[in-house]
Amino acid sequence: MKVERKPLPLVCPNPVILVTTQDKKKNRANIITLTLVGGICWNPPIIGIGIGVNQYSKGLVEHFKEFVVNIPSAEMIKDVEFCGLVSGREIDKFANTGFTPVSSTKVKPPMIKECLMNLECKVIKSIPLGSNILFLGEVVCLHVDESILDNKGGINLEEANPIMFNLTNSYWRIGGKIAAYGFSQSKESLID
Amino acid sequence: MKVERKPLPLVCPNPVILVTTQDKKKNRANIITLTLVGGICWNPPIIGIGIGVNQYSKGLVEHFKEFVVNIPSAEMIKDVEFCGLVSGREIDKFANTGFTPVSSTKVKPPMIKECLMNLECKVIKSIPLGSNILFLGEVVCLHVDESILDNKGGINLEEANPIMFNLTNSYWRIGGKIAAYGFSQSKESLID
Repeated sequence: MKVERKPLPLVCPNPVILVTTQDKKKNRANIITLTLVGGICWNPPIIGIGIGVNQYSKGLVEHFKEFVVNIPSAEMIKDVEFCGLVSGREIDKFANTGFTPVSSTKVKPPMIKECLMNLECKVIKSIPLGSNILFLGEVVCLHVDESILDNKGGINLEEANPIMFNLTNSYWRIGGKIAAYGFSQSKESLID
Repeated sequence: MKVERKPLPLVCPNPVILVTTQDKKKNRANIITLTLVGGICWNPPIIGIGIGVNQYSKGLVEHFKEFVVNIPSAEMIKDVEFCGLVSGREIDKFANTGFTPVSSTKVKPPMIKECLMNLECKVIKSIPLGSNILFLGEVVCLHVDESILDNKGGINLEEANPIMFNLTNSYWRIGGKIAAYGFSQSKESLID
């Protein structure tokens, strides 16, 4: 039995990521926790992030037109939530979490060392939408920790151990593999 | 030890959804499996979907400027993959899967009855990006099966049992709850 609920931008599940930006005036980097995010285009590879119009990070992305998407793991949940609940206007989040900034290859904002994946992005478009601005970022460099790569070059999501949000009241972890891509066209079993 | 990989629009994990559209000429509905998708804006609630420029569904979304996001469960994986590997130009996907169309409330494309969540969307903007077109859809009606609602009105993701993709070679399921939102500010334990 289905019921109607207040509309939400629920893609079930919504990933939880950390976006790093650079503040030129303060000469320090910031971290923001986001769940309004999605891969949008294969070629060029583009990720969209929705940042609140009043958030500190919004101006920082607009200034440098660059950001880094860092994928946190479940064991980082306390620091992940901290970065989503306090503002970088007042607090240096790198100094107040276990996160360490390391230089990116192609963009100014740093990557978070402890995150097992980092995607350096350059903004190609920004679209004001209401409470949030959509920044479309082309992924110009992807860093992956070798420990989460499977023998076919894919990401072992269980090893990556990412965080998801239900947009209401709880954070969730990844479970096991369901099937190999293309299983329905091959003689492989459903679970590989 | 991190290595550089070919850039991908990887938000880790990327959700797997089914988008339904309406074909006026064929007088039937279509289903497409997508993983380039994300919630983008809270207010109004907006979801972005990236559809390949040569895909049949692209024209259908452009025509009616409406679509429905249906959230499949892991046990539907065979039909989910089928809808991603064949084209609706030739095949009636509702007739060839276990999916049943039911009328939406506010848009023309039908919802998939078997999916436990359906989000009716109206296109507010479309942005060509290369291999994909980004359609931004305002969620005008959200249907949720009561069986996946927790006692606080949130989605129990384990009950929803959604599908995720690693963008390379495998589909994954959701795991357990990590923590309640706001746990770091309250006296609740990490795992509620």
